[in-house]
Amino acid sequence: LSHFEKICLVCHATVEDPAMFDCPQCSGLLGFHYDYDQVDWDDRFANSMWRYWRLLPISDPSHIATLGEGGTPLLRSSLFAEHKIYLKDECRNPTGSHKDRALAVAINHAKIVGAPVSYVVSTGSTGISNAAFAARAGIQSVAIMTMGTPAERVYPMFALGSGILEVDDAIDFLIDEVIRICREKKLYLSSTSRGSNPYQSEGNKTIAFEVVESLGRAPDWMVITVGGGGTISGIWRGFKDLYALKRIASLPRLVGVVPRQYNALEVAFEQNLSSWDSVLKLPYTDLPSSVLIKLAHAYPPDGMEALIAVRESGGFFASVTDDEALVGLRRIGRCEGLYVEPSSSALLPVVDSMLASGKLKSNQTLVALISGSGFRETFCTKEKAPLKKRTLNIKELGAILS
Amino acid sequence: LSHFEKICLVCHATVEDPAMFDCPQCSGLLGFHYDYDQVDWDDRFANSMWRYWRLLPISDPSHIATLGEGGTPLLRSSLFAEHKIYLKDECRNPTGSHKDRALAVAINHAKIVGAPVSYVVSTGSTGISNAAFAARAGIQSVAIMTMGTPAERVYPMFALGSGILEVDDAIDFLIDEVIRICREKKLYLSSTSRGSNPYQSEGNKTIAFEVVESLGRAPDWMVITVGGGGTISGIWRGFKDLYALKRIASLPRLVGVVPRQYNALEVAFEQNLSSWDSVLKLPYTDLPSSVLIKLAHAYPPDGMEALIAVRESGGFFASVTDDEALVGLRRIGRCEGLYVEPSSSALLPVVDSMLASGKLKSNQTLVALISGSGFRETFCTKEKAPLKKRTLNIKELGAILS
Repeated sequence: LSHFEKICLVCHATVEDPAMFDCPQCSGLLGFHYDYDQVDWDDRFANSMWRYWRLLPISDPSHIATLGEGGTPLLRSSLFAEHKIYLKDECRNPTGSHKDRALAVAINHAKIVGAPVSYVVSTGSTGISNAAFAARAGIQSVAIMTMGTPAERVYPMFALGSGILEVDDAIDFLIDEVIRICREKKLYLSSTSRGSNPYQSEGNKTIAFEVVESLGRAPDWMVITVGGGGTISGIWRGFKDLYALKRIASLPRLVGVVPRQYNALEVAFEQNLSSWDSVLKLPYTDLPSSVLIKLAHAYPPDGMEALIAVRESGGFFASVTDDEALVGLRRIGRCEGLYVEPSSSALLPVVDSMLASGKLKSNQTLVALISGSGFRETFCTKEKAPLKKRTLNIKELGAILS
Repeated sequence: LSHFEKICLVCHATVEDPAMFDCPQCSGLLGFHYDYDQVDWDDRFANSMWRYWRLLPISDPSHIATLGEGGTPLLRSSLFAEHKIYLKDECRNPTGSHKDRALAVAINHAKIVGAPVSYVVSTGSTGISNAAFAARAGIQSVAIMTMGTPAERVYPMFALGSGILEVDDAIDFLIDEVIRICREKKLYLSSTSRGSNPYQSEGNKTIAFEVVESLGRAPDWMVITVGGGGTISGIWRGFKDLYALKRIASLPRLVGVVPRQYNALEVAFEQNLSSWDSVLKLPYTDLPSSVLIKLAHAYPPDGMEALIAVRESGGFFASVTDDEALVGLRRIGRCEGLYVEPSSSALLPVVDSMLASGKLKSNQTLVALISGSGFRETFCTKEKAPLKKRTLNIKELGAILS
């Protein structure tokens, strides 16, 4: 008997066909229900997200393709040493980002349904994770992107064996068109939105599971940068699983951090908008460039789920500027010893203001999600916040060092 | 009672002063002896190299500065799936390289002796590790390098808070001069050669300890790329510790892989040279440029130790070209799902030839050390082996995807 079933989130039909990504009856988005009676952690997978496979939609993990993803450290913050603030360091995943969790699930599902190729629309972390896990699983990978993506972003996907398709069109139209083509031709799409692939959505739950195992309880707050919305809503479902299983006594409040230029979710939260149509009426474009490129969605594809998760949790949204993220990057660097991407350091000013306003009480525990490594973004960051150095000759060196 | 003592490797004097880095009596290099009766693994540090602190020269690990270094996965090779070949994935360390192990020891020792600053001469992994661990420990870091180092290499050190000093002189002279200045002024030097700092040398032993815990025994072969020589000799000492402790029944043979342009150790091994003076007579210069920059030493500072380790083990040295390393990088990428630096993929052609020649028998186990991540070298690799992509318009996309 399977430990999960796939269900339509709209009409609640059960969907048996593992290859279906939307509801055959109403075209609704799909999700999963798990048999909570079968849940237990699998000690064969120490230090890996597969320890929690009974809450993931993969039936038998005995022969999974894995790079040892998950099991990342929860580090006590040294910057805020006097507070109970922790960093979940997702840079320690195989390709340096939390996206490895989603793609590990997607690619193993692709293997199960016999897909020969995994496609993604991505210029960033998803494309790299897709390439790595597809390579590990022995299937092909293809990354589809818009024209003019910097070679530094694309190269790792290429080196990991991905085919690279550069399309001369706008990104929003490209995403929709690729979903349409993949559905029509029954191609395996691993992009990280529920509409693209509901299986990958489940991977992010394991972040919640690991945080709880590290702390021995749920934190009071969890601060997460939000791009497409799938990460924060996945983490929320993870905490809700544990709450339903009575493995935690309380749920955390979630704080979603978005770029100031792309703050539709913050505005929607503050205006208490209750439908996605009303969010789509907010005036955003995909145009403004941002060092927070990975979080830059005018209308995040999993935005409604993210909005609901933050509301249910009793948390809030906040927005930050590029400059604040870049200042945060160097502060996390020199105070925590972590070299992170701007899309992770963006959460630092929000933690600051939670402390300043007293929203975070001194007896409360806060976990900040460090979602990705800085090493993949050096080419871009160094332009925005240039390095300072001192040039001297060797005779001067003896006088300088002290 | 301390679990270790520091001894001179030349005159065998015991050196009490923790701040001494060479023998006060004969200026000889220093090493460590451990009380094998006190050795046991410390389960407080699951999934971290500090599990093995009783074989490291740090007295009390209760308050160490740590980023959760070590505990990296040992992955079964999918490229050589029919053989017992494993990859020790050191990319999974905090800054993406095995150097984190050496610097974690050095920086914690720096804290113990109260050093306010940790200096290194480095343009690569060592500089980044030094910056990260110093930041974590709350001490300053400075990276000293030659002129013209690419900004992509330096930037992470800067972002992690390091002072950057660029000196207008040759690298060999610079290294010697920095050692001289640091000794004279009692400054803390964390460069990764025994002559610079004997404490850091011990960190690499933990790679051997983890390999043995993962496999349940020592491998028959271990293949390691060699730059300065400290990594391979440190790993060898780790295996010898376990052998003396009777935790393994046999020792592996070590294979040292060097760049063809910098193969002094290979030649010295083949000519059976027995003194470092005779190695120094071999005609090398530090001039030829190489994508294997991290392995590029005309005369590796810990070369004699490396030579002795490989000889004792019954292994050998081999050399590879830049082109072979770059081909290997893409092969490891698309077959293993790991995006590695050229200085790691350089070992792939050597594993190939061990299989082709029958040197590696089918019942034998081989571990290859994947020492560092590709993400920090993208800027350089993409110039040497450019990516291939296909550009198309969105109408063509539907016809292409299948």
